[in-house]
Amino acid sequence: MLIGRIHLRLTDRSTTVRPRVKPALDTKHRLLEAANELIWTQSYGSVSVDDICAKADVRKGSFYHFFPSKSDLAVAAIEECWQQSREWLDKIFSTQNPPLERIEQYCAAVYEHQKEKAKKIGKVCGCPFASLGSEQSTLDEPIRQKGKEIFNRMDKYLETTLRDAAREDLIGKTDSAAAARDVLALVEGILLEAKVQNDLEIIKRLKPAVFRFLGISQHVK
Amino acid sequence: MLIGRIHLRLTDRSTTVRPRVKPALDTKHRLLEAANELIWTQSYGSVSVDDICAKADVRKGSFYHFFPSKSDLAVAAIEECWQQSREWLDKIFSTQNPPLERIEQYCAAVYEHQKEKAKKIGKVCGCPFASLGSEQSTLDEPIRQKGKEIFNRMDKYLETTLRDAAREDLIGKTDSAAAARDVLALVEGILLEAKVQNDLEIIKRLKPAVFRFLGISQHVK
Repeated sequence: MLIGRIHLRLTDRSTTVRPRVKPALDTKHRLLEAANELIWTQSYGSVSVDDICAKADVRKGSFYHFFPSKSDLAVAAIEECWQQSREWLDKIFSTQNPPLERIEQYCAAVYEHQKEKAKKIGKVCGCPFASLGSEQSTLDEPIRQKGKEIFNRMDKYLETTLRDAAREDLIGKTDSAAAARDVLALVEGILLEAKVQNDLEIIKRLKPAVFRFLGISQHVK
Repeated sequence: MLIGRIHLRLTDRSTTVRPRVKPALDTKHRLLEAANELIWTQSYGSVSVDDICAKADVRKGSFYHFFPSKSDLAVAAIEECWQQSREWLDKIFSTQNPPLERIEQYCAAVYEHQKEKAKKIGKVCGCPFASLGSEQSTLDEPIRQKGKEIFNRMDKYLETTLRDAAREDLIGKTDSAAAARDVLALVEGILLEAKVQNDLEIIKRLKPAVFRFLGISQHVK
């Protein structure tokens, strides 16, 4: 449906208004969005190229124009998802914010994202990176490598935060890199539990659990 | 191959000697073992009923005699895997052992199991319960429920251990149930990271990470 230069696309989920510019990029972007949505809320194995094409409203021929395989799409989709996450992660982990506030804000943002997703899907979906990484790491080396890359990038936010916190005597002296990896593991473990228990409330434990790990007892609820 | 009353079965992996008694139970057991092996080392979605039957050396008709679907088999297989795990978990978490030794032994046993599996498979496989739960929780309600059940059972070992540790003043006073859930999340998060990074060494962080979470600073390496 064309309204002036605006292309109004009616889908089964929502009505999106998209300017008709750079159609190839638009098609690629729709495939990435569809892949992220379907794989996150279901699983990699349960979603076919046909499902992704149907969701993205793209013909199968176009799919293979952009991606040689479902695995290649998944790798690009995780990267896209990470780039989108950076929009809020960069703000939260800005060194302009006091270190412990970064952690508090991060835990709160994770809860809000999961809540928003659960509201739409009716299930706690957990971490998209960890879910795909957990499912495919023994099977698909490029997906595993991308998952590893994302974990390592996430570690950098946490490592700087912990180093800053130690420098300001907000936590005890610590190996920031090692502690950051354990904090991320704790976050991922709690998100996994929330998914398996299908219980958003579990995610509220993020902040007290991370603070307890860091020895900030006054903040533990 | 029959040797006296012993049935020698040659597979692609190993030579197993099995007495030919209760063949129905034996068939069912082979299906459970094959499902656990394939789903743990690969994924639920990538393994078909045909794959499981081939691995178990069972005809498809027999499969459906025992299990209405792949999902039903997976639920029974997780239960079987838990019962097998109980053999070493009950020993380690015996209240005869001092509380912190239980945790130390648990972390060491998890490392040994993962090492043994990685040696056979060539990859770090992570936690079988968490991997399946993470993959299928938004898709398959009976599998999610069984995963939840296993997590809750595991919590009991940890909760009693932490309550005993607090009673003996080995750790500070704590809400044992809440702390046990966070310790399990930390363990699951580290196993997930080890799988995605495909690095066994990561699992050596289990003990220092759990001890740090519990505020046992003198044990932190």
